[in-house]
Amino acid sequence: MDDTLQGLLRAFGQRVRELRQAQGFSQEGFADKCGVHRTFMGTIERGESNLSFQNIAKVAETLGVSLAVLFADLENMSVNAGRKPASPPRTKKTLTK
Amino acid sequence: MDDTLQGLLRAFGQRVRELRQAQGFSQEGFADKCGVHRTFMGTIERGESNLSFQNIAKVAETLGVSLAVLFADLENMSVNAGRKPASPPRTKKTLTK
Repeated sequence: MDDTLQGLLRAFGQRVRELRQAQGFSQEGFADKCGVHRTFMGTIERGESNLSFQNIAKVAETLGVSLAVLFADLENMSVNAGRKPASPPRTKKTLTK
Repeated sequence: MDDTLQGLLRAFGQRVRELRQAQGFSQEGFADKCGVHRTFMGTIERGESNLSFQNIAKVAETLGVSLAVLFADLENMSVNAGRKPASPPRTKKTLTK
């Protein structure tokens, strides 16, 4: 998988996660509503799945957004996606000096 | 494949064909540039392929458009897509009264 694709998939996954969380869905509940397995939804949100048009359409429909909204400005998001971890950094660990 | 998905795939295929033709690509030349087989590009343009994110991204990149442009307003296009033939009607035939 090349870097451009990887960046776009990560940006797409972040977009899905943000919209899903904004609507108060758990990942599992959202996966159920989309009709996919929760582990598959995890791979989508982490940008690890080269998902199909059908699954992209399911996600858009379940979120109640257009496909254009799901893809809006993804190229600009993806520029930084490769440099950031998919999950927020763990804040419980304190750094020793 | 349900009707909604079929309609979206057809609308997507029409969009790809329009943009490809507007840029003066033959279907075969465009398929080559995307790195896919020309018969596969045919299935995409006819809405018969449930293509992957990777191939969607390749098409967008080759056309030089953003993913948002490729998906813009697809839902409204798809409302009629099921009722229209994928190709324009033949105008050479004249209708008899």
